[in-house]
Amino acid sequence: VFKQALVIGLGLIGGSCALALRDNKIAAHVIGYDPQAGAQALRLGLVSLVSAELSSACACSDLVILAIPPTSFDSVLAQLAAHLQPTALLVDVGSTKQPLVRQLDQMPASFAARCVPCHPIAGSEQSGPGAARATLFKGARLIVTPHSRNSPDAVQMAELLWAAMGSTTMQMTAQDHDMIFAQVSHLPHIVAFALAATLAAQPNAQRLLEQGGAGMRDTSRIAASDPALWADIALSNQAPLLQALQQYGDQLQKFIDALAAGRRNELEHLMQQAAQWRRQL
Amino acid sequence: VFKQALVIGLGLIGGSCALALRDNKIAAHVIGYDPQAGAQALRLGLVSLVSAELSSACACSDLVILAIPPTSFDSVLAQLAAHLQPTALLVDVGSTKQPLVRQLDQMPASFAARCVPCHPIAGSEQSGPGAARATLFKGARLIVTPHSRNSPDAVQMAELLWAAMGSTTMQMTAQDHDMIFAQVSHLPHIVAFALAATLAAQPNAQRLLEQGGAGMRDTSRIAASDPALWADIALSNQAPLLQALQQYGDQLQKFIDALAAGRRNELEHLMQQAAQWRRQL
Repeated sequence: VFKQALVIGLGLIGGSCALALRDNKIAAHVIGYDPQAGAQALRLGLVSLVSAELSSACACSDLVILAIPPTSFDSVLAQLAAHLQPTALLVDVGSTKQPLVRQLDQMPASFAARCVPCHPIAGSEQSGPGAARATLFKGARLIVTPHSRNSPDAVQMAELLWAAMGSTTMQMTAQDHDMIFAQVSHLPHIVAFALAATLAAQPNAQRLLEQGGAGMRDTSRIAASDPALWADIALSNQAPLLQALQQYGDQLQKFIDALAAGRRNELEHLMQQAAQWRRQL
Repeated sequence: VFKQALVIGLGLIGGSCALALRDNKIAAHVIGYDPQAGAQALRLGLVSLVSAELSSACACSDLVILAIPPTSFDSVLAQLAAHLQPTALLVDVGSTKQPLVRQLDQMPASFAARCVPCHPIAGSEQSGPGAARATLFKGARLIVTPHSRNSPDAVQMAELLWAAMGSTTMQMTAQDHDMIFAQVSHLPHIVAFALAATLAAQPNAQRLLEQGGAGMRDTSRIAASDPALWADIALSNQAPLLQALQQYGDQLQKFIDALAAGRRNELEHLMQQAAQWRRQL
């Protein structure tokens, strides 16, 4: 049990962390730092206190959860490195892990030792403090990607932390993580965004909203996700995602070619390979 | 209320029609015709009798529901034209409407008058008689695309029929229908099939099954649909679907270009347009 947890960034994920820490009695006090959403998070009761200053809030916390977009890590990490307690635990919740590991390579060993890269496989197309809920991580998977300078003790504490919020943790390398999530998460998001963008660009876009069935609704659901966040995530995993998009474009072209040429057997075979894999899910 | 309904094709849609006709007391008797799935449908109790011969079953029915893939329409329509009662109602449930309308153009006026093209916006990624359920059409939308030689009386009966099964009916032209459903249904299916095919082709395809979250699950759900059926649907709406796929490919390329060039604002703007439209759903 931690004495005081500081959650930096009080959107969907950070806000849900704050609630889960409190409801599962993982931290005696949960405070927050978020210049934009802080006031709303306080009103919603996600945290008991919002700090106006990051350095002092960090200095008196033994757990810090970094729940801001990866593009904002730079300046925050520098401040945390200057003020984090030597035995405190720092975890992030970012969707890509190699950029953080590379940043930590440039930072003091004592700080890097305490900073454990984490990725909770939870979230939704909703965003902001209003979408936070205490059970977001319950039953979810959580990936930990320890780096070479991590203290084993910090890695273990991080796994216990997420397990206490109800998640099932597993370890992999940051490189494996980023390649796998380019394929299973970032690619589906671009696919869904491009689908919704295609329909949104039609002259009869409003009418299409009424006509679509469950297929359109599900296939495009994650296109309602936060664009600012997903632009960040896509760019922070640029190379693996571009590779996945290239492979997707090639597959799509096979479907288009078979359809255009009226090659029914080939089209059915392509669909069959997709269906066989998907039915195992 | 019909005396005897004949359902041709006892898969998910046809089987559900049979159950809905019985449960809503729309037909006194419900019989079926399906050389492949007939025995299973009978075992499951979807119909009270399975006919071995289409012509006689048709001759003594005042409602015929055609629930087979559009590619099999040719030979069946010819037999129905020879045996359908002059006051009977014939409806289909196909996902594309122009091919049927074009076929009816070649057929006797008295037969074409009684054949009303219909498309229930219901279904699932499951298929076969085992997936049939009486409530499939309850609360669903149903499109009727009357053609120029339809008897107004037959069109009205068709609308009443589906309303009695719980659907909300609306009319549009077959051409409008096929363009709209290329965009809101057939395009999302190809998008989902191509996504699942991409992941299925990875060396670590089995591992990806375990790693994906809700985003991957929803975006790829309809890739589990019946490949034989969807190859037929895609080919029966070839030109409108190819146009939608072209537009989708163009949108996808915009995302890829912005990501490859690191143009964050442009990437976020593309996502924003997609999200704005999707959030209205």
